[in-house]
Amino acid sequence: MKKAVVLLSGGLDSATVLAIVRNLDFECHALSLDYGQRHRSELTAARNIARSLNAKAHLIIPLDLTVFGGSALIDQSIAVPTQTENSDIPVTYVPARNTIMLSLALAWSEVLDCQDIFIGVNAVDYSGYPDCRAEFIQAFESMANLATKAAAVEGKKITIHAPLMNLSKKEIIRTGLDLGVDYSITVSCYQADASGRACGQCDSCRIRRAGFVAMNITDPTHYKQ
Amino acid sequence: MKKAVVLLSGGLDSATVLAIVRNLDFECHALSLDYGQRHRSELTAARNIARSLNAKAHLIIPLDLTVFGGSALIDQSIAVPTQTENSDIPVTYVPARNTIMLSLALAWSEVLDCQDIFIGVNAVDYSGYPDCRAEFIQAFESMANLATKAAAVEGKKITIHAPLMNLSKKEIIRTGLDLGVDYSITVSCYQADASGRACGQCDSCRIRRAGFVAMNITDPTHYKQ
Repeated sequence: MKKAVVLLSGGLDSATVLAIVRNLDFECHALSLDYGQRHRSELTAARNIARSLNAKAHLIIPLDLTVFGGSALIDQSIAVPTQTENSDIPVTYVPARNTIMLSLALAWSEVLDCQDIFIGVNAVDYSGYPDCRAEFIQAFESMANLATKAAAVEGKKITIHAPLMNLSKKEIIRTGLDLGVDYSITVSCYQADASGRACGQCDSCRIRRAGFVAMNITDPTHYKQ
Repeated sequence: MKKAVVLLSGGLDSATVLAIVRNLDFECHALSLDYGQRHRSELTAARNIARSLNAKAHLIIPLDLTVFGGSALIDQSIAVPTQTENSDIPVTYVPARNTIMLSLALAWSEVLDCQDIFIGVNAVDYSGYPDCRAEFIQAFESMANLATKAAAVEGKKITIHAPLMNLSKKEIIRTGLDLGVDYSITVSCYQADASGRACGQCDSCRIRRAGFVAMNITDPTHYKQ
């Protein structure tokens, strides 16, 4: 059985990716990052999703990015916006987060002797983060193939898969439902409370809600009010 | 004063880089990684070097890479070789370590509004690690310029500098001495003891020792015996 490392935040997108990868008959090694995020309950969600979708292993790596700051998601003094901002990139952008998470996935994949890394980035219904675009993923893959002993010396080519890249939120939800994802255990909200209940107002909540509305099905998200 | 993020392991090479960057009149922000390395005393060395070379700031980031394993530097059950191996890449190679460290440097540089990152990799007197080669550094730079808000959206181009890339160990030592580096406070040995004393036998010790011999000066390294 081929192995895959799957980045798992605990949100709707990465849960869908894990279901896709499992359905492709990979042995799934899920990786989450405990980076000081405001919505820490997404890590509990990640744990439940990994179990629910039968991941072979699930690692939650502690790496405190609050020492750098620079984002509403890791700095309590910067408020999470509750309406779309005018600027291109919202303050919820976390500097280099996907680069860091993919780097850790690369390390683990090399030790596992695995050449496939999956990430749930998406460039349709998303917040405009630069590290969610196809050109970034391609550049990371090129770099990864020069970075490791396995890829650069032993010729084991690394592929960074982003299966949601060109899907709308509606299409992502449809895919996940077809594969049996239980979206009630996922947490998307940037300021979810300790129980994983969502604010319903941040970008992530609004994009998620619009996806369920477009699918014309009931949104299983738990809201604070 | 322009800012720079400088990766600082605590060894001879990165100490020399920090001196070079300071000499270029950058405000230096030194970054070290506490990753579970066997030679943990290099972190004490890093602290002393940062102070000695007047770094503006020095962060030591805890990130436990022993959860992945796969290297003699982070797995006590794999011995550090004391003579050159036949294989191309020694077991002291740590999967994706430079990728991870550069990713963290990228995050910090974006928050600092800094576009220059320095790393002490070298492709002459080195152990053959794939992530020490110029093509890897160039690929990381290309990826970095697509990864961040600063680079990809605001047009602030990131440069990954590797000023030691084409120098021999002898030339590195000469450069550092010219810039006033105190090599007695650096730790290169892969299995240095808690006091920073070197084994004298691992690859890193042998390459370092040969550099001092080639310079025809006394090696200030503290040895265990």
